Amino acid sequence: MEVGFLGLGAMGRAMASRLLSAGHRLRVWNRSPEPARELAGRGAEVVEEPAKAFRGDVAITMLADDAAYRSVGLAGPLLDRAPRGMIHLNMATLSVELTRELAAAHAKAGLRYVAAPVFGRGDVAAAGKLTIVAAGPEDALEQAGPLFEAMGQRTWRLGSDPSQAAALKIAGNFMIASAIETIGEATTLAARHGVAPETLLDVLTSSLFSAPVYKNYGAIIAGRKYQPPGFRLALGLKDVRLALAAGEGAKVPLPFASVLRDAFLEAIAHGDGDLDWAALAEVARRRAGIVAGPD
Amino acid sequence: MEVGFLGLGAMGRAMASRLLSAGHRLRVWNRSPEPARELAGRGAEVVEEPAKAFRGDVAITMLADDAAYRSVGLAGPLLDRAPRGMIHLNMATLSVELTRELAAAHAKAGLRYVAAPVFGRGDVAAAGKLTIVAAGPEDALEQAGPLFEAMGQRTWRLGSDPSQAAALKIAGNFMIASAIETIGEATTLAARHGVAPETLLDVLTSSLFSAPVYKNYGAIIAGRKYQPPGFRLALGLKDVRLALAAGEGAKVPLPFASVLRDAFLEAIAHGDGDLDWAALAEVARRRAGIVAGPD
Amino acid sequence: MEVGFLGLGAMGRAMASRLLSAGHRLRVWNRSPEPARELAGRGAEVVEEPAKAFRGDVAITMLADDAAYRSVGLAGPLLDRAPRGMIHLNMATLSVELTRELAAAHAKAGLRYVAAPVFGRGDVAAAGKLTIVAAGPEDALEQAGPLFEAMGQRTWRLGSDPSQAAALKIAGNFMIASAIETIGEATTLAARHGVAPETLLDVLTSSLFSAPVYKNYGAIIAGRKYQPPGFRLALGLKDVRLALAAGEGAKVPLPFASVLRDAFLEAIAHGDGDLDWAALAEVARRRAGIVAGPD
Amino acid sequence: MEVGFLGLGAMGRAMASRLLSAGHRLRVWNRSPEPARELAGRGAEVVEEPAKAFRGDVAITMLADDAAYRSVGLAGPLLDRAPRGMIHLNMATLSVELTRELAAAHAKAGLRYVAAPVFGRGDVAAAGKLTIVAAGPEDALEQAGPLFEAMGQRTWRLGSDPSQAAALKIAGNFMIASAIETIGEATTLAARHGVAPETLLDVLTSSLFSAPVYKNYGAIIAGRKYQPPGFRLALGLKDVRLALAAGEGAKVPLPFASVLRDAFLEAIAHGDGDLDWAALAEVARRRAGIVAGPD
Repeated sequence: MEVGFLGLGAMGRAMASRLLSAGHRLRVWNRSPEPARELAGRGAEVVEEPAKAFRGDVAITMLADDAAYRSVGLAGPLLDRAPRGMIHLNMATLSVELTRELAAAHAKAGLRYVAAPVFGRGDVAAAGKLTIVAAGPEDALEQAGPLFEAMGQRTWRLGSDPSQAAALKIAGNFMIASAIETIGEATTLAARHGVAPETLLDVLTSSLFSAPVYKNYGAIIAGRKYQPPGFRLALGLKDVRLALAAGEGAKVPLPFASVLRDAFLEAIAHGDGDLDWAALAEVARRRAGIVAGPD
Repeated sequence: MEVGFLGLGAMGRAMASRLLSAGHRLRVWNRSPEPARELAGRGAEVVEEPAKAFRGDVAITMLADDAAYRSVGLAGPLLDRAPRGMIHLNMATLSVELTRELAAAHAKAGLRYVAAPVFGRGDVAAAGKLTIVAAGPEDALEQAGPLFEAMGQRTWRLGSDPSQAAALKIAGNFMIASAIETIGEATTLAARHGVAPETLLDVLTSSLFSAPVYKNYGAIIAGRKYQPPGFRLALGLKDVRLALAAGEGAKVPLPFASVLRDAFLEAIAHGDGDLDWAALAEVARRRAGIVAGPD
Repeated sequence: MEVGFLGLGAMGRAMASRLLSAGHRLRVWNRSPEPARELAGRGAEVVEEPAKAFRGDVAITMLADDAAYRSVGLAGPLLDRAPRGMIHLNMATLSVELTRELAAAHAKAGLRYVAAPVFGRGDVAAAGKLTIVAAGPEDALEQAGPLFEAMGQRTWRLGSDPSQAAALKIAGNFMIASAIETIGEATTLAARHGVAPETLLDVLTSSLFSAPVYKNYGAIIAGRKYQPPGFRLALGLKDVRLALAAGEGAKVPLPFASVLRDAFLEAIAHGDGDLDWAALAEVARRRAGIVAGPD
Repeated sequence: MEVGFLGLGAMGRAMASRLLSAGHRLRVWNRSPEPARELAGRGAEVVEEPAKAFRGDVAITMLADDAAYRSVGLAGPLLDRAPRGMIHLNMATLSVELTRELAAAHAKAGLRYVAAPVFGRGDVAAAGKLTIVAAGPEDALEQAGPLFEAMGQRTWRLGSDPSQAAALKIAGNFMIASAIETIGEATTLAARHGVAPETLLDVLTSSLFSAPVYKNYGAIIAGRKYQPPGFRLALGLKDVRLALAAGEGAKVPLPFASVLRDAFLEAIAHGDGDLDWAALAEVARRRAGIVAGPD
């Protein structure tokens, strides 16, 4: 397929690379040129304006946040210049509100908007094993099938309303953040009573909590190895903010998300915004008076 | 082995039954006589005073809470009447504070105290598949091995300090309660945006959250089937209280546990104390203005 | 003075009325025409476009929120059409972020921006007894003195940075909301132990808490008289949101504000958004299982 | 009157001193002998056992907490040795639960139990200006009138159930702690936006918040003068615990009290337990990344 690809962060690069390997033709754009080079060497055409990549059969976007979508013009001007009927496959995590706005704007411009956010970090993307949650026009979902297959190990189709894919992704990220905070509090409590974090986590992840989220983040937290970040803590605050905003939009109080927000802010105030978001656990330790030490 | 068994609630009965099946001789006591009958029919000797069951090679206790241990005399008078050197295997979830007191009192009375709380509900106990977390004198742990084997699928030995087993169990229960609250908030958020709880849980438990705690409680919450209770919500409040007390003892703030406490209280105030503790999710729904429906 | 006045809600009307009484000439604008009529009868010139009121010696604005300021053009187009050197006296509660943006945009357009938010509800405004917190260019503060005198009983000058007036006002509103929540929780706790809310409040406001905020809101809450609203609960959520945003901008966790946010959302989800914001206390009652009833 | 007085901490000493000045005869007891000396020099009889002070027309107690009342024997043995009909005027802040137990035990022993907790710190007690909240048998309240007059500037009679006085006092202390936390968060927020804590507090305490609690604690917090403590922070945690326990007993969730609990724990974990409880504000500062320094 002919695919435009906008946004070549760690995730975007890995996903674009998978598409090239699967034989698709790519036209790529990124705000800074460096990330495009490796892809260029593998046959991708590098363009210098978003509008030149926002074309083809499908345009995939993987930009940072709501603000980036607006500033690039994806909520407005860019749409009118795209070929009618084109599928815009947005795979980034956006707010429910912007998702609704984008869906309406695309329909008005004669484009097909699909929200298809993903679960998985850089290494998972590189292996083509993302979990994809897609919602949008049925024919568009059908047509994008080969692209999903190249990037993900499983794609969930949620129906025709893109905002539901956004909401599910936001709820899922909130669940991950809650698990991290839970591990942080539980291991600090255990440690203060003489139980090593590893021991608590070994017991729990061997039984009720035998899931990647507890194993992976548990290991990071027990080992206090927050660098390099798989997902930056400052972006975690963004995700919690999306959950709170989605809650506010639907009048859903989210007390755990509120606690998370304050903890993320505290972590950033203490200079940990560029660490892996598992460093949220350090907040629990600090509050308990445990002086951070090297690891 | 010759085993005394005090406390025949749903868990205690199932565990005692496993011991009988494994060929151990049991002397059982329970505050009310009914639960002992079936065990009597299978060869257990039923006694009418705690002191008469608190003897043998090993005495196992599975009473409700700290208060029950005190009122039965396990923090005092009963100890002096037990045979010197006897192992007291307490498998209930007690406070760290009482655990420390019991360990000291038993040592003084010449008894060996082992804290061996368990993870698993009634059906797991009946299948002999509990996860056991044991700490106490090494020779006592060794000697109790065959009993652990009869009741659990895996026993973790944490060393010689019983309070560490209590702390680990308390931290683990806090983690379960946090997972329930997380599911409650996330599914309410998703539902208000048109995503069925089942869908959210299917996606998440197929990937990052593929653990029994999310699958089991997720199914209960999505289906709103809170009866019969696998673990009563009112007991969940007790467990959160233990976590908060352990945190207070060690100066560890636990903001998630604080949120849980308030949510449990709210659930009980609305008459849900006798439902399964997964009904904590109804608090999130109610707060969002969703009127409880059938199920 | 020649004064433009934009925004004639309950507060704006009362403030404009005071200015007329003090002999100033007013040109007034409001989105809907009705509120302007009474002022017209007293000599104010009613105009039909914001730009026609945004002129004179001083233009005072009292619009609803950040969004209203943007949509009317006060963050952009309107500025270029105003007379150079004019003072824009914004007396509404805006975000710190927009305040910074407005200050910069006004400076660029050769206008003088003063943030002068007020404490006091409609009746206080009508009596000319507002507390005004002003920050902006010193000469502008000086020049606006007679206007402040007509509207307030006391004006605090905070210096030249308008964002500090915004921040102080936001912090102050957060304090009021915290006091309301505190009264809600304390009276519910007392009531459940047989102590009437009035009794608790009588004792406390006769000594340590002898302040208007506790007396006024205490009386509303004890009497459960939430109508007509002095300040709508839904606007209270807006104010808490401003506090949270200001906290996020400066990396200041605000756990009380987080609790307030969830409580306001819950109140709105239960249909109380149009009541006085003291109705936040009903959330505490509802959570405790007290069925709302008339009083 | 012939008065026994047990408990000569800072508050107790000041209150006993007032009673001597008013001409009452005192028999005093304290766990450690030093505090009694000055009173002895002024005519009080110093006794060495609690039982010897727990007699006379009225016995006043002002011990530290629930545990102290139990250990001294006031929940049991001491009662039977007191003269029938004696009034026990407990002026300390005890739990609602223990208050109920004491009321029942005294009635059974033929004594009259009055709960009369006080608002006010040491200097207020020394000036005889405490606010007293009393509940108990009507004749006992009447008879104790002259004592109340000697110690307080105002006594509120709540009726015959002592637990209501305890509940009111607990709710009041929760309100004070909430005010302190509110000041801590608000001043930190303001400070991070360039507004001095003093400025925020000047504005607010000149209008809506013109109450001693905001003026006094505001000054301590703005000046960061937490020594000597008027009320120790560690005792503040005790008071919050009493509020949470009273809430739990009556199924009243108290989210603000939960936040307070975690903040107090954090303060104590950082070594501030012996400072004035206004130092709770330092927790808000620390969380925002403001490094504590002298002032």
